[in-house]
Amino acid sequence: MIIDELIKKIDEMGNPSVIGLDTAPDYLPNYEKVRDDAKALAESTIEFNARIIDKIKDIVPAVKVQIVYYEACGLLGMTVFSETMKFAKESGMIVIADAKRNDIGATAKQYAHAFTNGDFNRDFLTVNGYLGSDGIKPFLGKEDKGIFALVKTSNPSGGELQDLRLENGLTVYEQMAKLVSGWGADCIGASGYSNVGAVVGATYPSQAKDLRKLMPHTFFLVPGYGAQGGGADGAVAGFDENGKGGIVNSSRGIICAYKQEKYKGMSFADAAYAASVDMREDLVGALKRK
Amino acid sequence: MIIDELIKKIDEMGNPSVIGLDTAPDYLPNYEKVRDDAKALAESTIEFNARIIDKIKDIVPAVKVQIVYYEACGLLGMTVFSETMKFAKESGMIVIADAKRNDIGATAKQYAHAFTNGDFNRDFLTVNGYLGSDGIKPFLGKEDKGIFALVKTSNPSGGELQDLRLENGLTVYEQMAKLVSGWGADCIGASGYSNVGAVVGATYPSQAKDLRKLMPHTFFLVPGYGAQGGGADGAVAGFDENGKGGIVNSSRGIICAYKQEKYKGMSFADAAYAASVDMREDLVGALKRK
Repeated sequence: MIIDELIKKIDEMGNPSVIGLDTAPDYLPNYEKVRDDAKALAESTIEFNARIIDKIKDIVPAVKVQIVYYEACGLLGMTVFSETMKFAKESGMIVIADAKRNDIGATAKQYAHAFTNGDFNRDFLTVNGYLGSDGIKPFLGKEDKGIFALVKTSNPSGGELQDLRLENGLTVYEQMAKLVSGWGADCIGASGYSNVGAVVGATYPSQAKDLRKLMPHTFFLVPGYGAQGGGADGAVAGFDENGKGGIVNSSRGIICAYKQEKYKGMSFADAAYAASVDMREDLVGALKRK
Repeated sequence: MIIDELIKKIDEMGNPSVIGLDTAPDYLPNYEKVRDDAKALAESTIEFNARIIDKIKDIVPAVKVQIVYYEACGLLGMTVFSETMKFAKESGMIVIADAKRNDIGATAKQYAHAFTNGDFNRDFLTVNGYLGSDGIKPFLGKEDKGIFALVKTSNPSGGELQDLRLENGLTVYEQMAKLVSGWGADCIGASGYSNVGAVVGATYPSQAKDLRKLMPHTFFLVPGYGAQGGGADGAVAGFDENGKGGIVNSSRGIICAYKQEKYKGMSFADAAYAASVDMREDLVGALKRK
């Protein structure tokens, strides 16, 4: 099971973090030089991502590649998205494509195909379960592929729908948690966790704690740490009693670390490495306190 | 406002329908011949879509292009997606990109950019509002761009979450309807409808009727007619008392019409045209009965 592979890598590296390669053009140090040349911009982005991957691959188990930061640059951007995922995979990292896909059954089947073959192949894909089971089932059934379904998102307005309480006593996100847990029941690996994971934001630690009880076999992808304001203690709130069960994402905090006072004078890749080490220590510290 | 343009086209043509160019490779008449040659497959798909657009553009106001049928063919497929939208636009049709995008604010901003500029430019984009306002607001504010947000989807399992009743007495989809209606309040055109529309499936007519009352300024994109089992009466159930307020989608029913007994002997483009005429008559008849 792919979830077991991810957990094994996290254990080996002692690092439950994933770096988000959300490489917006203006994150590139040479942006001003290449901004008006689409091809040079694409090449610079591939190189930027590749140099960061090269630097962190031995201490960070996974990358999350957010598709739209590439889609926003059109067809050339999609090439960079594809190349980045391929390079990360070849470098031995676990690859999460962050695309939050969702559709009816027949169409979800196409999405599953798109992300299981060829140019957009990945290990995990983020999905949105608003359409229910028939939109999710096409993603299941392959031991080497997993999904993370949105449950409780990290953004301020996530609660507008997700926090509302249903007549059955559950909130909408808890109900979603039950659905997600059910979808993953048939693909639980030796680790005790399922290939069907959940997105649970670092910015809502008490909800994350409750969700851990509600979905004991569901691995959490935790966005919202760092730039979005979530601290390490909040980020690991949904981890289990053994300090496992989740992986915390940071994007801008790592790939734009070179812009921070703290990492001043370092190259972008060195700064990303240093920030990754700092993040690991931060999370490990929080897990010890937990 | 783009919604006014869409409604004007519907009125002029007397046809509240949109054709879904969900062109899976095996829908092509020459699929067996090109299946193993990615470039030939891509070229055949562009030609297939272009010939259908050429044929129907004077009687059908809009096309809906479902991104994943192209994404599933990788980078070359994305080129076909882009070319298809461009060709439809140049042919004078309104273009809906069906991608059901959703993310947190900063990322939604990138999506809005991706679909407002360059290769993936479109008139309308489908979105999923599970993340609340900050994930939707970046799509608003341009008079010539609109969105359709999922409210009540056409698939069998859509109700697993959407139909549950909240403590406040509304179902989840009714609550979503209220959110969607609010997002659209500041971009209502002369037609009385907003640039923020809703996806309301043809397969749930009584819910569509109730939603029409709940969101009087929200234009409906209605999937589920035809291949998914929704009839014409169900498809127009959410239209207003003037027989306006919605557009009904058919994909396989039109682009694969040449495979049906009814249109036997016709070319795929002629069959698509004939099926589009039949669909128009079917919807117009249902509106008269309404």
